[in-house]
Amino acid sequence: MIVIMKNDASPSQLTNVIAQIEGMGCQAHVSRGEERTLIGIIGNGRPFDRERIEQMDGVDKTMPVLRPFKRASREFHPEDTQVTVRDVVVGGPEVVLMAGPCAVENRERLLEIAVEAKARGAQMLRGGAYKPRTSPYSFQGLGEEGLKILAEARKETGLPIVTEVMQPELVPLVTSYADVLQIGARNMQNFALLHAVGKAQCPVLLKRGMMSTMEELLMAAEYILSHGNTRVMLCERGIRTFETYTRNTLDINAVPLLKQLTHLPVVVDPSHGTGKWELVEPVSRAAIAAGADGLIVEVHTHPEEAMSDGGQSLKPETFSHLVDSVRRIAEAVGRTA
Amino acid sequence: MIVIMKNDASPSQLTNVIAQIEGMGCQAHVSRGEERTLIGIIGNGRPFDRERIEQMDGVDKTMPVLRPFKRASREFHPEDTQVTVRDVVVGGPEVVLMAGPCAVENRERLLEIAVEAKARGAQMLRGGAYKPRTSPYSFQGLGEEGLKILAEARKETGLPIVTEVMQPELVPLVTSYADVLQIGARNMQNFALLHAVGKAQCPVLLKRGMMSTMEELLMAAEYILSHGNTRVMLCERGIRTFETYTRNTLDINAVPLLKQLTHLPVVVDPSHGTGKWELVEPVSRAAIAAGADGLIVEVHTHPEEAMSDGGQSLKPETFSHLVDSVRRIAEAVGRTA
Amino acid sequence: MIVIMKNDASPSQLTNVIAQIEGMGCQAHVSRGEERTLIGIIGNGRPFDRERIEQMDGVDKTMPVLRPFKRASREFHPEDTQVTVRDVVVGGPEVVLMAGPCAVENRERLLEIAVEAKARGAQMLRGGAYKPRTSPYSFQGLGEEGLKILAEARKETGLPIVTEVMQPELVPLVTSYADVLQIGARNMQNFALLHAVGKAQCPVLLKRGMMSTMEELLMAAEYILSHGNTRVMLCERGIRTFETYTRNTLDINAVPLLKQLTHLPVVVDPSHGTGKWELVEPVSRAAIAAGADGLIVEVHTHPEEAMSDGGQSLKPETFSHLVDSVRRIAEAVGRTA
Amino acid sequence: MIVIMKNDASPSQLTNVIAQIEGMGCQAHVSRGEERTLIGIIGNGRPFDRERIEQMDGVDKTMPVLRPFKRASREFHPEDTQVTVRDVVVGGPEVVLMAGPCAVENRERLLEIAVEAKARGAQMLRGGAYKPRTSPYSFQGLGEEGLKILAEARKETGLPIVTEVMQPELVPLVTSYADVLQIGARNMQNFALLHAVGKAQCPVLLKRGMMSTMEELLMAAEYILSHGNTRVMLCERGIRTFETYTRNTLDINAVPLLKQLTHLPVVVDPSHGTGKWELVEPVSRAAIAAGADGLIVEVHTHPEEAMSDGGQSLKPETFSHLVDSVRRIAEAVGRTA
Repeated sequence: MIVIMKNDASPSQLTNVIAQIEGMGCQAHVSRGEERTLIGIIGNGRPFDRERIEQMDGVDKTMPVLRPFKRASREFHPEDTQVTVRDVVVGGPEVVLMAGPCAVENRERLLEIAVEAKARGAQMLRGGAYKPRTSPYSFQGLGEEGLKILAEARKETGLPIVTEVMQPELVPLVTSYADVLQIGARNMQNFALLHAVGKAQCPVLLKRGMMSTMEELLMAAEYILSHGNTRVMLCERGIRTFETYTRNTLDINAVPLLKQLTHLPVVVDPSHGTGKWELVEPVSRAAIAAGADGLIVEVHTHPEEAMSDGGQSLKPETFSHLVDSVRRIAEAVGRTA
Repeated sequence: MIVIMKNDASPSQLTNVIAQIEGMGCQAHVSRGEERTLIGIIGNGRPFDRERIEQMDGVDKTMPVLRPFKRASREFHPEDTQVTVRDVVVGGPEVVLMAGPCAVENRERLLEIAVEAKARGAQMLRGGAYKPRTSPYSFQGLGEEGLKILAEARKETGLPIVTEVMQPELVPLVTSYADVLQIGARNMQNFALLHAVGKAQCPVLLKRGMMSTMEELLMAAEYILSHGNTRVMLCERGIRTFETYTRNTLDINAVPLLKQLTHLPVVVDPSHGTGKWELVEPVSRAAIAAGADGLIVEVHTHPEEAMSDGGQSLKPETFSHLVDSVRRIAEAVGRTA
Repeated sequence: MIVIMKNDASPSQLTNVIAQIEGMGCQAHVSRGEERTLIGIIGNGRPFDRERIEQMDGVDKTMPVLRPFKRASREFHPEDTQVTVRDVVVGGPEVVLMAGPCAVENRERLLEIAVEAKARGAQMLRGGAYKPRTSPYSFQGLGEEGLKILAEARKETGLPIVTEVMQPELVPLVTSYADVLQIGARNMQNFALLHAVGKAQCPVLLKRGMMSTMEELLMAAEYILSHGNTRVMLCERGIRTFETYTRNTLDINAVPLLKQLTHLPVVVDPSHGTGKWELVEPVSRAAIAAGADGLIVEVHTHPEEAMSDGGQSLKPETFSHLVDSVRRIAEAVGRTA
Repeated sequence: MIVIMKNDASPSQLTNVIAQIEGMGCQAHVSRGEERTLIGIIGNGRPFDRERIEQMDGVDKTMPVLRPFKRASREFHPEDTQVTVRDVVVGGPEVVLMAGPCAVENRERLLEIAVEAKARGAQMLRGGAYKPRTSPYSFQGLGEEGLKILAEARKETGLPIVTEVMQPELVPLVTSYADVLQIGARNMQNFALLHAVGKAQCPVLLKRGMMSTMEELLMAAEYILSHGNTRVMLCERGIRTFETYTRNTLDINAVPLLKQLTHLPVVVDPSHGTGKWELVEPVSRAAIAAGADGLIVEVHTHPEEAMSDGGQSLKPETFSHLVDSVRRIAEAVGRTA
């Protein structure tokens, strides 16, 4: 941490700041420039509270030197983490495709989609039993009934299941059915939920909040890691910007930058990242070209009847086309799919 | 809802869309322009799923005609809602000031702040016992011990208590101590939590998410209202933008626009809305000038020792100055404070 | 400037960076922390190019210590700058109201509006002869004919004229008619234009770009100041955010923060800042409550016939109401209007 | 255009709106819903001014049906436009690589870079003689001297030249040297400049503004096209968001969506789009995978000595690596490079 004093800071203000730093168990290194005096803080290994210093008279601002995440950081854990989900490995040489409907709607429909998704090349099945919906009047998901249907689809197809959990107290129930717990974008900073999945014995797919920086995403991962669960996958799914022609703006820069900053696998959701089914295939290719370890794609056999996200869901034949073109890109970057 | 067909849509595509609309129990009114054909949908009183239509061949896009919130809407409830919290009325002629520390840190400090806040003009006491923190290594709050300290401060000063609840299963516990349940910005779309406070017998202060639109804020209020709790106050607390000189960008436009769109009281949080204590007073004046019904302000007797948000907390004497200048603005807009 | 080395930087990399700094005529102060080595750069009075250092091996990042603007900075010029436009002073105790149509449409209409604006309390007349329009098919302004009409309105009412200039080569022409040259939001970083108005003998109203930070606004002002024109007024007119219920998000925080960072007057444009005429009056009150030195408001006698911005223009009687309520706010903050 | 009346609009308000529409030479089709009355406007082929209608009593809002661009639209011009620059075709089967320094710094350096860029696979040379710089104290470019150096580099290497023009009155001069006129992001809505390049006999590379929507980009292209210059290439170069780890957020969604909306070629600038040289190669791969017709990349032989943008420039050997990996992606999507 560096403290920058105001250009008119008095000697006694400087003395007070140094005393405060030392009182917090740290060392203060003063460096006098022509216009400003700086204080470098050598820490004691514990996180440092900038705001206490920023409040003091004579202080202009403070600037952090170190990134605030540790367990999630590649600096502290240089090797790639591979997350194994049954027989599927995410974060290894193979690009992993997760596909399925936004929501589990009923047994027949889900089984139909699962069979199609597998036949077309999916390695995992996605589908929501608990749905976060902007409107209280929209379909909210089938709940445990949906989890049972997912489990039946896994039995039939062998595909591991990715499904969302929205409440800490439901983590044990969802874990008893799911292979991967998904934390949705709106819950990325639901800290009680992060705590709960951090205690769970189950891989986690952590979606970036639509309003969250990469640093906040990595801090959310840090919550889960620090509670003991190391099987965390990050998911870029688009951020909110001023652009209105697309539902979100998929942050393609985040893919290589996250791969550089962290050892955790990075998955991309082109369905939410674009909000338009016509864009899903080209953006999927882009994600793999940029280094993503997998994709999570909305696929539906009858998107025009879907209870949510129909407009961004692919039909099975379109998904087949995506799989083919993604495979060619995977090969072009030295991977398989 | 209006459906806009593509300019090259075929007659059979149009027929299919009309059939789909009618199959959903609605009426379709077709209107042919020179370049495009439009279909106006007359609903059946239930929410309509745009995405099913958008998926259909020949459809360019759909556009909603009605706003999606009803119970929160001033159109359906023209009179102002006043929320009574013990003897304080929010949403009436008087501007209400809520003040206190970001977090309850210990008994002595909180009582000291509460006494000062009351003496300087606060009508409610704010303070967090459960703290959402970006880092798992930061102070997370005292939990129920903090709630007990808040209750003691209320007993001593008579100030009603506003405190945050972060998990659905803690709503009964927090309700047993608090006068107002605060939903934090990060939880604005924690739908399980909204559901739980919607069932509670306690007023709610619902903070706008830092990257949530006004429509999403009103839909979050709609969740609470639709579960039976009508005592909801909205809180504008700044949104996330590209500007980095301030922590957030307080959306002053939201104050008069929310007052126009909804009957619910609108409170402003200038502490989070700016992130800098020097800006809190001028922005508080602006909020009241724009029509806000109250303010929630971070006040601390020793901000340089605060465990969070010290940099945006006011000292008691600065808060006094704010109260004086806010009162003058309140009078200038025909209110009291 | 501070340089932060990577945690695995080698001694020779450190030596190279120091050599580069010294080769640029600066001094390097090395400070070794537990995890990182920092280098404080003591400059030679000239701006320092961060990017050269950031490119070097072993460097993690650089952080600026000083703000990049000087002439615009209050640190270097503590007293408020007052800009005198004929007999009107902007930046003094009196709040200044500028009003008029978006565009000059024809002689009769402009004179009618000018007379009304003056009668209702405006101290300057705004109106565009050159209009930046998103579409090439929209009305682009009357050009010099519009300037002549503005000059006639000034002669008739005595109101000084604020009008936009969009091209460097038109600065002399516009200066020959105008009392204040307006730089529009889209041209805030049109550096050739800033250069040209920096050479002009005419006050400038510099609008913040809809995509520009406060620092960039101050750097744009620095361009004008550094070319010799010190009569610069800044104008906050709303920034672009994800919110769609309003045309822009007026950044109310910018008002007190700019007043703190710079000595230049700060004017607010509530018409573009909101895009809705119903919000103009409450947001005008907010701007003055927050410390703005003036307002620039769109007023039109027949907004439903306006050739642009009709939806955000006030009718004269509504403007009268605004003037009254703004005056009450001005008094509440110790100013006049 | 559709007009939505307020739910409490009176019959006489409706009559007035219809009269206004008809007075503007259009037809009004009224459609009465249960809660609202809508009016569909059938136009007369000329652009319609929404704001006049929005201002009228009883009107809630208006919604456009058609996109506002025509000449740039694929609907009106279904075939891909190919822009030929000397012997290079942009928008055809081959992916085109433009490379070079941010700024022309001196003759020797530019020739050195040009030779390297060509040897490594570039088909065009980029370099700025006129530089838009945030600070008036930064290097502003060599001006015409820089253009001469560029022309010499073209003579030596045969590479066509892409260079920025910042002022309308310099268009003839820059056109006399350049093969492609670049419009920079900050000038995307400099309408006088768009007008001037629209009259020029020279291809244009139009960069998207950092906070401009795709619609605004297409409207800016429409300006150029409507003045007669049809050789326009669009360039996605990253937009401004809340994310701070990268300089901009490259909008990968824009690549396939622009290709769908318009017939103009789409080029991507991964250097500005990321601001970090380590991200340039993976994001270049992503751009081509998503369907871009070309790349414009900053390459410098001595980035640590570059006068601007050193931090995002590639060294020649790194650029070679990029070319190789981009070629593999181009083949994977059925193109060459």
